[in-house]
Formats: sequence, structure tokens, C-alpha cells
Amino acid sequence: MNNDQSQLSDGILFTDQYQLTMAQLYFTMGIHEKSAQFDHFFRNYPDYGSHQAGYCINAGLEWAVNWMQNCCITDEDINYLQNQKGETGDRIFKDDFLNWLRENGNYDKITMSAIPEGRVVHPNVPLTVIQGPLAMAQILESGLLNKLNYQTLIATKAARIKDTAREQPLLEFGLRRGQDSGVNAGVRAALIGGADFSSNVGISHFLGYPPKGTHGHSMVQVFISMGEGELGAFRAYAELYPDDCLLLVDTISTLESGIPNAIVVFEELRRKGHEPVGIRLDSGDLAYLSIQAAAMLDKAGFPNTKIVLSNQIDELVVWQIITQIEKEAPKFGVDPNRLIKRLVYGVGTSLITSQGAPALDGVYKLVALSNGNDWTPSIKLSESREKTHNPGAKNVWRIYDKRAMATADLITVGDSNPIEKDEIALHHPTDHTKSRVLKKSDLSKAEPLLEKILDQGKLVYEFPSIEELRKKRRGDMECLDSGIKRIVNPHIYHVSLSDELWNLKENLIASAE
Amino acid sequence: MNNDQSQLSDGILFTDQYQLTMAQLYFTMGIHEKSAQFDHFFRNYPDYGSHQAGYCINAGLEWAVNWMQNCCITDEDINYLQNQKGETGDRIFKDDFLNWLRENGNYDKITMSAIPEGRVVHPNVPLTVIQGPLAMAQILESGLLNKLNYQTLIATKAARIKDTAREQPLLEFGLRRGQDSGVNAGVRAALIGGADFSSNVGISHFLGYPPKGTHGHSMVQVFISMGEGELGAFRAYAELYPDDCLLLVDTISTLESGIPNAIVVFEELRRKGHEPVGIRLDSGDLAYLSIQAAAMLDKAGFPNTKIVLSNQIDELVVWQIITQIEKEAPKFGVDPNRLIKRLVYGVGTSLITSQGAPALDGVYKLVALSNGNDWTPSIKLSESREKTHNPGAKNVWRIYDKRAMATADLITVGDSNPIEKDEIALHHPTDHTKSRVLKKSDLSKAEPLLEKILDQGKLVYEFPSIEELRKKRRGDMECLDSGIKRIVNPHIYHVSLSDELWNLKENLIASAE
Repeated sequence: MNNDQSQLSDGILFTDQYQLTMAQLYFTMGIHEKSAQFDHFFRNYPDYGSHQAGYCINAGLEWAVNWMQNCCITDEDINYLQNQKGETGDRIFKDDFLNWLRENGNYDKITMSAIPEGRVVHPNVPLTVIQGPLAMAQILESGLLNKLNYQTLIATKAARIKDTAREQPLLEFGLRRGQDSGVNAGVRAALIGGADFSSNVGISHFLGYPPKGTHGHSMVQVFISMGEGELGAFRAYAELYPDDCLLLVDTISTLESGIPNAIVVFEELRRKGHEPVGIRLDSGDLAYLSIQAAAMLDKAGFPNTKIVLSNQIDELVVWQIITQIEKEAPKFGVDPNRLIKRLVYGVGTSLITSQGAPALDGVYKLVALSNGNDWTPSIKLSESREKTHNPGAKNVWRIYDKRAMATADLITVGDSNPIEKDEIALHHPTDHTKSRVLKKSDLSKAEPLLEKILDQGKLVYEFPSIEELRKKRRGDMECLDSGIKRIVNPHIYHVSLSDELWNLKENLIASAE
Repeated sequence: MNNDQSQLSDGILFTDQYQLTMAQLYFTMGIHEKSAQFDHFFRNYPDYGSHQAGYCINAGLEWAVNWMQNCCITDEDINYLQNQKGETGDRIFKDDFLNWLRENGNYDKITMSAIPEGRVVHPNVPLTVIQGPLAMAQILESGLLNKLNYQTLIATKAARIKDTAREQPLLEFGLRRGQDSGVNAGVRAALIGGADFSSNVGISHFLGYPPKGTHGHSMVQVFISMGEGELGAFRAYAELYPDDCLLLVDTISTLESGIPNAIVVFEELRRKGHEPVGIRLDSGDLAYLSIQAAAMLDKAGFPNTKIVLSNQIDELVVWQIITQIEKEAPKFGVDPNRLIKRLVYGVGTSLITSQGAPALDGVYKLVALSNGNDWTPSIKLSESREKTHNPGAKNVWRIYDKRAMATADLITVGDSNPIEKDEIALHHPTDHTKSRVLKKSDLSKAEPLLEKILDQGKLVYEFPSIEELRKKRRGDMECLDSGIKRIVNPHIYHVSLSDELWNLKENLIASAE
């Protein structure tokens, strides 16, 4: 696509057709500028099949807002819509609506609150709250969900891998396995969630993180073809990159050829006053090979070189590798804790695609409509009670216990701090038999999670740097009980409704039925 | 990202860091302009867990080539690379290499052959063959794989759903569930593979397909909030879109409210001289509800309205819906075949993410290097024999039997048509005990699959329209035995090596070991 074309498919028309047909209907009814509130939230943690998340890491907000601020209907967009024909050849979009859209086809009247990126978030909690004229708030849905769902999904996966890897360095390697240029958003999310670097050069530059990489098998093949073999390849690489020498050792045979050759080159480097960085293992039994590699490198006097592991890694594989090292390394005279601390993980497919759960089910639901001065809460009944959303304008509080651990997220009506009361009632969102009372004396604080981002299209928030978002993530994860962070069969964190919200919802359901 | 930034992360630097460090090494060795051949192929059909593909649909080529032709290193790229620092703060990329890259950082010297898009393709067959100067052919790897892997994955998923749906209309609904703007590539691939339309407006415009859509639940909620109820919403929609009236009937209760209200509105439409298009079911037991909907619509005199099904659909769900309709519909007086012929499928998550197999394992392997006039085949041994690629310059022939069905893909050395011999030996790619001989008298033709696309960067191929690609796909799928197309546990199609290629590979392996 040339630039014009990519702008076309990424601007206001980066939406679903039904948003535009609904917007025209609202226009025709004269309600297109009625104020509406939509909540964005997800319903379920990612379920990877054999394992499930017990938390998510919120991400995507800054890019979503940048996209919104750059979106503006173009003459070409209008021209295209003018020419759209229905089943019988009549125009779908009428001139009066298109004239309105030409003037108003932007997100300049949208007001947004959101939970910042990098924060731990949970199902059914409003992550992003949109208020604005009904027609444009409706058109916004598809693009906004696109920008937010994917990054939250990937930040979550990165956090799981990083946490399982005991905070060892994590490299994002997914450029060749993701969805076209969408991988760039995935790199950003991975960094927020816990990856330390990416191999993807362009987006690393844009985000201000140095890209990381070593060499591929093809380089060794080239040297073999020239009659210089793997050792020749390693020597040439070390000569060019004496202080950044990380060698891929599995092109021929990891233990018979790759590691011995790497050690020869590392010794040559050291004689010239340089320290090697390490080796990369990209096939075979990574736990077994890393133990053997550590033993060989230790013996040769390189106890501090890194061992980078890549090839089909995800959080379960990391867990298995660490478990196997803890059990097996002592048999080979290798200290398992030292070995685990020299590992680096390079993760491609499973991180960039969130393998096992390749989409987050984030939705965008109409929760209130204004009739002049007041807001009327709105609800959509559903045949499954779990899918009936929480109506009206709400606030979200994270309640911390005396240990300063997060014990529940409480969704309330109105702005008053729930912890000011002596007791807080927590209602299960759908099951009326489940409720719980917290005593003020058992709690340390209630923290409001939503922050104001846009006021009538104007940015009123300073986006933190990715480094700051990483810090938020670490801080929030330290406040999660370890059962919530368990990668298989986690404890379920409590997301609860206040008395007032529970009653509002029940009354609306009763009056709708 | 503003435009400059997106160009940065989508141009030459849309690659992995190690490609650039290897390119600099080749430059330093003086072999950066040595001619190299790389093959792109995938190793395994997508495996969705409970079901597996027995074929893939090739896609992504036109966008990959467009991207290559627009890629050119920029001053900003060079400036960035100049400032990249290694572990000790020294520059990673030296001026002499960057000066060369400034002049040569483009794909203008790349020659490419490829199997066209829309064709059925199989593992280990070269789909894209790149010849060009070693350094730039190496840098190309990551971006090329990114562009080709994803579209082939999605075209394949679309073909499976379309085939299972007995060629009924298939709508792509995945904008909110894919990877940021990568969804646009997914829409294109879905159309090639079998989707008929997409809901995504911008990319539909770009590709020349009208976007499709109806309305969402929020529209009905708005009318309920205004006291006009679901019927009011349907009436307003029908009034505005009298010839494109497709109503979503599950906001309140599909059978109690949605369908009866739709029928009221359809009758009003007909009295005004318009025919309704249909209804959409988006929750509940879609097979049961579609039978009930058909019975109600038939009884009311609307036997031809479409029934659009959406919500968590994939090929297994389609199969289950059709099976259930065939079994249950007669009990309710509904002709199952008529009902199946009025269904339309809207598929979001599972198509845009290829749920169950969210990445294709396409790789890019060095297979030959030129030493002046001759090509030297190159091989990378691997601890698993399946991963040892096929060396050298090759050709690919599809062999058709007397029924004109595809019976094998044969990879050969040289250009001679294998069917000119009386007998063709087919070797299993890795297992020497498996081979098969085809007699010329049993065959109808051998078709070469690779076509020349780029000659030294110059486009020498006319890209077919998407409509032509869809036709190729249908044609190729008609030549596949139904066992290959089975969505669960398919027969394995034969991909074979010729005598000459088998011998070349064995000799190279023997001399390398």
C-alpha cells in the first residue's frame, strides 16, 4: 500500500460498516449529538487452553489516543461513502449525513477516562470510559477495541513469561510470526508487559529501546560454503563485534561443535582484552543443553557468559526448563540458581500471537445516555447473566488490605471513597448469593483507578514513558497474591459491585424484563 | 504514530537486528554482493489442536512485493544505525558499511520466483525463491516472512470455513480482534481464501469490495432508552434502509421478541414494495435458533430472507451447525437443505487470528551461493532430519492423474518436465524407505508452479485481481481429493523429491557429516 492507501484504511474508516449505518440512523433521528457513555472492558482473562491468566496488564491507550487525535474524515473517505450502493443500487449514505460527517468526522468531542497502561486489570472493570456525541462515539468502537485489545493481550502474555522466568531478561523475537505491521504494536505491548528488548529494529528505534540480536544459522552456512566452517564464522563475528559477541551454537551440533568452537573464540577474544557476551541455543532440549553449556563454559573459565534460549518458548516451557535445571543441574556439577540467573529468553510466536488465546474479548457497551442534564443508565439484557453489563457512570477502586496487597476491585456509582465507611459491601457481579463485607480496620487504602485522559478531545493527561509503565506493572504485580499470579489454575481475584451499583443493576433488569 | 514514524518502522528497518549485523559482517568480508539463493517455505500445515489443515492457500505475495518496491533506506535510518551502541558504548555499525547501505539499502537487485497467490500449497515446497546480493537478501528475510506467513495462514483458515460452509457467503468480522493495523492484511487474505466480504470499511474500499454490516445491539438499546423499544429500532432502521434491511434479533430475546418484531417490520416493508434482506443471530444455540427462525420466517411468508450467523464461529462450529440442522430441521417442518442454503456466516476472532494456530511456521533458508558462474548448493544439517532443508535451485511440479486430480507436488533439480519420462520416481523428503513410482500413462499433466515475479527488482509479473485469485483457489481445491480437504485428520498430500534432488541432498548430507 502506498501512503495514501494506508491512511485510508487506518483513519476514520478503520471501523466496521455497521457503525456508519447506525450513525446515519442516529443522524436521521436527530439524536446523533445526544451524549452517550460507552464502557470498554473485557469479560474473561485469556485462557490458553492448558493454562489461564489470573490478571491482565492494561496496554494500548497511548497509541489508541494518538490514532484518535490523528483521525479525521477526508474528502476521499466522503467520496467513497457517497458511492457505496445497497442491494438495489441506491446510495447507502445520504448527502445530509455525509455533509454532517464531513464537518464532524473526528474524535474532537470525545471525553475519555481510562485506567493507565501498565496497571494490573481484571474482567468487567471499565478500563476505558468514553463520553461523547452518540454517532461519533459509536463509530469509534471498532478502531478503539482494535488498538486496546491486542496490546493488553500481549502485555499480559509478556508479564506471565517474565514472571515465570524469575525476571530474567526477555527478548521479543516475533516480527516474522505476527500480523503484518501489527507486530509493531505487539512489540510496544511486550515491552510494557515485561520484555526488555525486541529484535525488531524499526519499532525499537521508534520506542527508544536498542534492538537486540546475534546472528542466524545462514551466516554459519555461508562460512561452511566458503570452506571456513563454523569456527571461521565465529572468529569473523567475534573480530567484528568483539564486545558484543553472542554466538548461535546449534547450526551443526551444539555440544560437539558449537560450544567447543565458541569457547575457542571466547579464549581468543579474552586474550585480546574483550569479554564475550554469551551463546544462544535454538533447538533441542534447552534445559539439558543449557546445563551442559554451563558446565563447559564454567570449566573453560567463562562462568558469567549469558545463555540465551530460543525456539518455541512460552511460560509453560520456561517453567519446565527451570524445574528441570533445578533437578538435573547438580548432577552435572552446575549450581542451578547460578545457571537460572544467567539465562536470557528469546520468545517469538507465543508472545507476539499470545498463543493459545490469540484475542482478548474486550467489548464496548452503551451504559448511559444523556437526556439534556441527566444521564439515564442503559443496559442490554442477555440470555446469559454474565453478559449483562454494569449500567451507568461508575468509578473503580482498588482496595488494599493491611499487608498493602490488592484484595478486590470495587465498582461503584459516584465518586465517594468507599473506604470512608466502616464497612464495605462487595457484591459478586452476577451471583446474588455471593457477597462479602470488608471492615475499614482491615484495609490500608482504596485507590481510584480511572484517570481523565481526554476532555472534549483535548489531551489532559501526560502519557508516561514505557519505562514508567514497566515500573507500574512491577509495582502492581508485587501487590498481587501469588495465587493470582499462578500460571496454571490461578485463584480468582475479586471484582465486586458496591451496594448502590448492585441495586441500580437489579432495578434496571427488573424493569426491562 | 505519525506518518514519518510508521514509515520508519515499516521500511528497510522492518527487520530483525541480526540481519543487519550479519549484513555488516558480509560487507566486512567482501562477500556482501555475492549472489545467494534463499527459499521460503513452511514446514507444517496449521494444526488447530482438535483439527488440522491438509492444504494451505498461498497469499501475501502482492503486498510483500509492493512493500519491497517501496523499501529504501532513509537518512533517518542511517542516522539511527550510526548511533546504535554495543555493550561497551562503541558503535555497532561502521561508516564504510553504512555508506554502502545508504547506496544499496533497497531491494532493486532482488530476483524472485513464486507460486502465485490463491494456489493450494503444501509443506517443504519452495513458495518464494529469492536470488540476490547476499547482504540485502539476508536483510529481506524478516519482513518478507512477516508479509507472507500471516496472509497464507488466514487465506487457509478462510478456505476451510468456506469449504465446510458448502460455499455459502462468508463475512469477515475481525477488525476488533486482530493485531492493530495488521487486520487489513488479514482481510485481504480472507477474501483470497474464501470470504466474500468484510465489515472493515477502509480496507474493503482499498480492495474494491463493498463492506458489509447491519446494526449492533447498542442501536436497539438506544431506542429502548428512548421508550421506543426493539420494534421502534427495527422500524427506524427499515425506514432508512428499506432495501438493505438486515435486523439483529437477539438484543432482548431472539424467539420471543427479535424475530416476531422483525416479521412485523418485514411485512410493513413488503407493503411498501420492498423485500427484506434477513436477520442476524449473534448468541445462543445458532443451529436451534436458525431452525426456529426459518420456521417462523417461512410461516410469515419470508422463505428467502437470509439468516446470518455470528458469534464464535469457526469451521468446527459450522460443521456442527450443519450437522444439527440436517438432523433436527425436519422435526420442525423445515427443509434442511433449503435452510443451509439461506445461511450466511460472519466470522471474527477465529478467522482473523487463525485461532488454534495463530502463526504459520514459514522459514527462509539459504540453499545456494554463487561462486562466480556456478551455484553451490548449501545445506544446514539439523538434529531432526525433518528440519534439513532441500538444497540448491529447484523447480516445483504439480502432477495430475487421469482424473485431473492433483496427486503429488514434485520438487526437482533443473527445468525438464518430469512427465516426459515414462516413469517418475517420487522420494519421500526424509524417509529413504518411502518412495513411489508413477507411470506416465496414469498421468494427465505436470504443471510448473513457480512463476517469475521480479527480475533484478523489476516487476515482470502482472498481479491478478483478488477475484482471479479466488477463482484459482476454487480451481485448485476442486483438484484436491476430499480426504485432503477433510477438516479433521486429513489425508497427507504427497510432496516428493525427484531422483536427482534426493541424490544431491544425500550427497551433501554425507559430505557435511
